[in-house]
Amino acid sequence: MTLNTLDRTHDPSLRSWLESANDPSSAFPIQNLPYCTIVRPHHQRGTVAVAIGDCVIDLSLLFQARLLDGIAGIDELGKGAIDGVAWNLNALLELPRTARVGLRHRLCELLREDNHGLRDNPRLLEVAMRPIKDTEFGVPVEVGDYTDFYASIHHASTVGAMFRPENPLLPNYKHVPIGYHGRSSSIVVSGKDIHRPVGQQSPPEADPAAGPTYGPCKMLDYELEVGCFIAGTNNLGEPTLIENAWERIGGLCLLNDWSARDIQKWEYQPLGPFLAKNFASTVSPFVITPEALAPFRIPASARPSGDPRPLNYLLDKDDQASGGFDITLEVLLQTKQMRANGEAPMPVCKTRAFRDMYWTFAQMIAHHTSGGCNLRPGDLLGSGTVSGPGPSERGCLLEATWDGPGKPRKPIQLPSGETRTFLADHDTVLLRAFCEKPGFRRIGFGDCSGTILPVRG
Amino acid sequence: MTLNTLDRTHDPSLRSWLESANDPSSAFPIQNLPYCTIVRPHHQRGTVAVAIGDCVIDLSLLFQARLLDGIAGIDELGKGAIDGVAWNLNALLELPRTARVGLRHRLCELLREDNHGLRDNPRLLEVAMRPIKDTEFGVPVEVGDYTDFYASIHHASTVGAMFRPENPLLPNYKHVPIGYHGRSSSIVVSGKDIHRPVGQQSPPEADPAAGPTYGPCKMLDYELEVGCFIAGTNNLGEPTLIENAWERIGGLCLLNDWSARDIQKWEYQPLGPFLAKNFASTVSPFVITPEALAPFRIPASARPSGDPRPLNYLLDKDDQASGGFDITLEVLLQTKQMRANGEAPMPVCKTRAFRDMYWTFAQMIAHHTSGGCNLRPGDLLGSGTVSGPGPSERGCLLEATWDGPGKPRKPIQLPSGETRTFLADHDTVLLRAFCEKPGFRRIGFGDCSGTILPVRG
Repeated sequence: MTLNTLDRTHDPSLRSWLESANDPSSAFPIQNLPYCTIVRPHHQRGTVAVAIGDCVIDLSLLFQARLLDGIAGIDELGKGAIDGVAWNLNALLELPRTARVGLRHRLCELLREDNHGLRDNPRLLEVAMRPIKDTEFGVPVEVGDYTDFYASIHHASTVGAMFRPENPLLPNYKHVPIGYHGRSSSIVVSGKDIHRPVGQQSPPEADPAAGPTYGPCKMLDYELEVGCFIAGTNNLGEPTLIENAWERIGGLCLLNDWSARDIQKWEYQPLGPFLAKNFASTVSPFVITPEALAPFRIPASARPSGDPRPLNYLLDKDDQASGGFDITLEVLLQTKQMRANGEAPMPVCKTRAFRDMYWTFAQMIAHHTSGGCNLRPGDLLGSGTVSGPGPSERGCLLEATWDGPGKPRKPIQLPSGETRTFLADHDTVLLRAFCEKPGFRRIGFGDCSGTILPVRG
Repeated sequence: MTLNTLDRTHDPSLRSWLESANDPSSAFPIQNLPYCTIVRPHHQRGTVAVAIGDCVIDLSLLFQARLLDGIAGIDELGKGAIDGVAWNLNALLELPRTARVGLRHRLCELLREDNHGLRDNPRLLEVAMRPIKDTEFGVPVEVGDYTDFYASIHHASTVGAMFRPENPLLPNYKHVPIGYHGRSSSIVVSGKDIHRPVGQQSPPEADPAAGPTYGPCKMLDYELEVGCFIAGTNNLGEPTLIENAWERIGGLCLLNDWSARDIQKWEYQPLGPFLAKNFASTVSPFVITPEALAPFRIPASARPSGDPRPLNYLLDKDDQASGGFDITLEVLLQTKQMRANGEAPMPVCKTRAFRDMYWTFAQMIAHHTSGGCNLRPGDLLGSGTVSGPGPSERGCLLEATWDGPGKPRKPIQLPSGETRTFLADHDTVLLRAFCEKPGFRRIGFGDCSGTILPVRG
């Protein structure tokens, strides 16, 4: 299988019998078909669904109705879906890629406007299909381990200049895909409110002997990231080679890695960020498959001249195999006042810089496993904050309101007349993403949103 | 319930009908009763067992035989044990402490020399009890998230002096229980062999422009740590206060946090250790309960005069509640040559320094949750390398073979005539621990062992 083979599921002329999917502004046309975990009323456990247009369709009920029979390699998944045991997206991500591709093809077929199997089964549709707006979503995948990378060189350079003016980009950056382990337990799904964290902050500069202070975070920030859910397994001690790393990409999502900058600054030496990051990370509900993203694949970013060539274990002969994705990312901000005024969320960042990440997910996977570490189905990799070189392309407030060394921060001006250098209580942060390219349907990611609540009383 | 109440289960005169438990050298007298996960022949899933003397006893079969009926709060656990669904140590760690104490009391009763219920049931014992030496163990608990701390000030000072001679102990150390997130997927149980990892290492000092090298780790190390499995749950955003933190200690184990020092040195800035640590971490098979350790509890370490007082959220009025444990720890080393010669593993470290850790597990739990992070039953905290001030009390080779700044490392001399500055292929590292105190039975932890295999071919 060539890695970025396009097939009939990418054909832009394909239409669904669900009219909302054919709207050119829909994030979820029939060419997308992302998976999600939905909470069914009166059920304790979530179930897996596929999104199409403005609806989701419960896959376990499609299995029960035998509409997903006969797809090579997914019999066990079907049994799990029907009896409800071990049925979640992780089970799907355990399957070989061919089986996942088979499921995509079948779903595409069932949802096409000329297919009657599902469309003309109103009793099934009544229980299996529901509007996204009335659906409660869970975290799409049970995340075993979450690793956050630092793959945007623009982000690393700007932030490095703040924390280490004398030494912004460390000597390892252009050789090592820098990453660290994050917290799985506090990953929440879009829509869940986040309490402002409390923690230790640096002693006052004027009086270091006074010791650190303890109180509400005063520099609360978002981070615009792309997440990658891992497919398949490598045994402990068995690296996934760069040429096979693409097969481990199970799907992408949006990820807001909320950050408490004042806590981070005080705690992060020498072992890295801890409480500054582990109070919450928000993921979008939809897992966008690599198959849906195939038309938007790009080769690994060419290094600027003079930059070192990646070491062999990070370099594939087929440039495409280690490549990335061309995704446009946005951050929008809405304050309580703006909501009261009826003002729409204001864009504070828009960037295509994900195409220029210094390291791709394939390279991160090859690096992560190179020493023998095992990645399990459903493990999550974060790209790190995605920032571009331009002033409107900064993926966090730490960068967006920075005005240079020694200068006061330059607040963002909001339509309500308010300003922000960091997040205030009741602010809502919204991440969005889409891929577009002439000759293809636009593929959306769905919203990744979270609102800051005051410190827990 | 007073936190360190001693009760009849601690009575040193208690004896078991299983004679091996009464041997004063046994790690597992009736006063201990640690839990473990054993792999039953012909079963896909592990089951929970309790260790006594030189045997383990399958708890699910005791539940089936109705010998554990009527203990307040464990009915659901019993059902899970009998039907085999969701039956593991995590389910036990979800229970309120009173229920876990109830189970301990019942087990103590069933195993006492004057109790006939189990002793005189040979058909049950034949299936439920088996010698430890013939038992295959699993990782005792399914670890959701693993956090590693850095709580030994001796370790932090010595290692700091190597990595940052100008700045060994950072200004935050005496205020913040420094920790970082580790890798859950690569936690293995004692006895599992570990392949030497491969990875990037710093460019040669003589020629930095040559760039980093890539190859087998040349500075492979162990780390002597105590692990703490978390009991109970706190919701996201709801800190566990220091006065309740003791209740979250579900049990202790030994932990060897294998470390690739050359990989660590090159990769760890600015976000902390990553591949240097995530290729494997070994835990001992037995979870020693806080109840078994109650006689060995000690108040939180008094700070040297001049050291800052911990911030309020880390300081309990009841010194005892935030206190630690008095445990003696050992590291032993055995090479392939020593095995061939019939030479016993050689002690390379023996220390009681765990009593002097700068931060206790209760303080680590209060800190970890202070910003709102949730800890789930079965999450693992590592203490960080335990080192004492003396030359024979260094919990890793990085420290043990260090001879001061600028000096060559001083190798350890082994009885075989060999020397080690770091681990060689086929070396076995063995961690051991016990608590002892006049008037009480000695409580052992069981071995935590691992052997280094060559780089995977």
